[in-house]
Amino acid sequence: MNRKKIAIIVAGGKGERMNTAIPKQFLELSGKPILMHTIECFHAFDAEMQIIVVLPSSQFEFWDELCKKHNFQIKHQLVAGGDARFYSVKNALDTISEESLIAIHDGVRPLIDSGTIERCFAEAERSGAAIPVIDLIDSIRKLKTGKSKAVNRSDYKLVQTPQMFKSEIILKSYEQNFSEAFTDDASVVEAAGYSVNLVEGTRENIKITTTLDLKLAEAFLI
Amino acid sequence: MNRKKIAIIVAGGKGERMNTAIPKQFLELSGKPILMHTIECFHAFDAEMQIIVVLPSSQFEFWDELCKKHNFQIKHQLVAGGDARFYSVKNALDTISEESLIAIHDGVRPLIDSGTIERCFAEAERSGAAIPVIDLIDSIRKLKTGKSKAVNRSDYKLVQTPQMFKSEIILKSYEQNFSEAFTDDASVVEAAGYSVNLVEGTRENIKITTTLDLKLAEAFLI
Repeated sequence: MNRKKIAIIVAGGKGERMNTAIPKQFLELSGKPILMHTIECFHAFDAEMQIIVVLPSSQFEFWDELCKKHNFQIKHQLVAGGDARFYSVKNALDTISEESLIAIHDGVRPLIDSGTIERCFAEAERSGAAIPVIDLIDSIRKLKTGKSKAVNRSDYKLVQTPQMFKSEIILKSYEQNFSEAFTDDASVVEAAGYSVNLVEGTRENIKITTTLDLKLAEAFLI
Repeated sequence: MNRKKIAIIVAGGKGERMNTAIPKQFLELSGKPILMHTIECFHAFDAEMQIIVVLPSSQFEFWDELCKKHNFQIKHQLVAGGDARFYSVKNALDTISEESLIAIHDGVRPLIDSGTIERCFAEAERSGAAIPVIDLIDSIRKLKTGKSKAVNRSDYKLVQTPQMFKSEIILKSYEQNFSEAFTDDASVVEAAGYSVNLVEGTRENIKITTTLDLKLAEAFLI
């Protein structure tokens, strides 16, 4: 691969869902803020990768203190988050102009492994857009006007991050106006007319949104 | 509630998916086979509940030894499993004739809580059929002829057990011939023309199918 690699790590959480005073990206996992684990995963995959961290600007100072406290040395740029995830990602993309491969990752997925990062970059390099997915374990039902019906779980995949794209595709896609239908970056890219390819993720790559998830993540790290 | 309550706990696993010599329902969780935890959950909810455990007949002797080894005293009947889950459940249902409320539960969901059991029984008593469901955390995509498209995750629910039914509904439903479309008991009941109501489950109520799940379950029990 010759293209430069850039990771945009989006951590816009304000701690509301967790019912904690501290935003979830700063909660400690094995003695260190979740967000630091996440950054380390990308740095461990490729120490040359450019890392952009998107945070609400109100959290910049606190993050800076955390970095000092934990002697966190991995170089990264801070970009101010927007009102919705779409705008947070857009703010980060606005700082990029060179031809590159861009990974967009949830700040609260600290258990991302190098294998998944590698598979996503390889597929994005090949086809332009790649996202990691996993199978469903439980049965699934679709809701419809107050009722529900069983659907075939093998027809579905759960979607994770990092979602990876050639820069020209993701930059072009984020020129669109925001839509409520944009549930993730892949949906933005698809709305712009591109197709997205699936690569295999891992079940460990959970998104930490509740204290229960934090407990799970601790278990995975043992 | 005046109806008698019966729990059918289905543990047909032969250990193939786990790649362990020992079937997953017998793997130890906090020092005790998973299946014993599961039985205890129902017994703790209502000590008067009739409990039927479905196991491959080849495992009866081993189970008996495990019960002796762990001094497991909760009264339950053993029923021989069939070639597929459908036939295992049917074998258990064939032993029931009285009017009752019947819970059908995966033997490898040992973290079922009394609250969920209570909500399911209450809704089954009211409407005839109730299953516990939870929201999706990750985004979800639907596969279609080699491609995939983003679908709205709030239109879907993940389905768990115990699935609960009035005896006349579930017994009648299992008179149908087996179909590959039967992914769970709710789908059997729906195919017979009944409707099924959703109640809120809990994320802790995981199905243990891999060693990773076992690790998660251990974390939940701490």
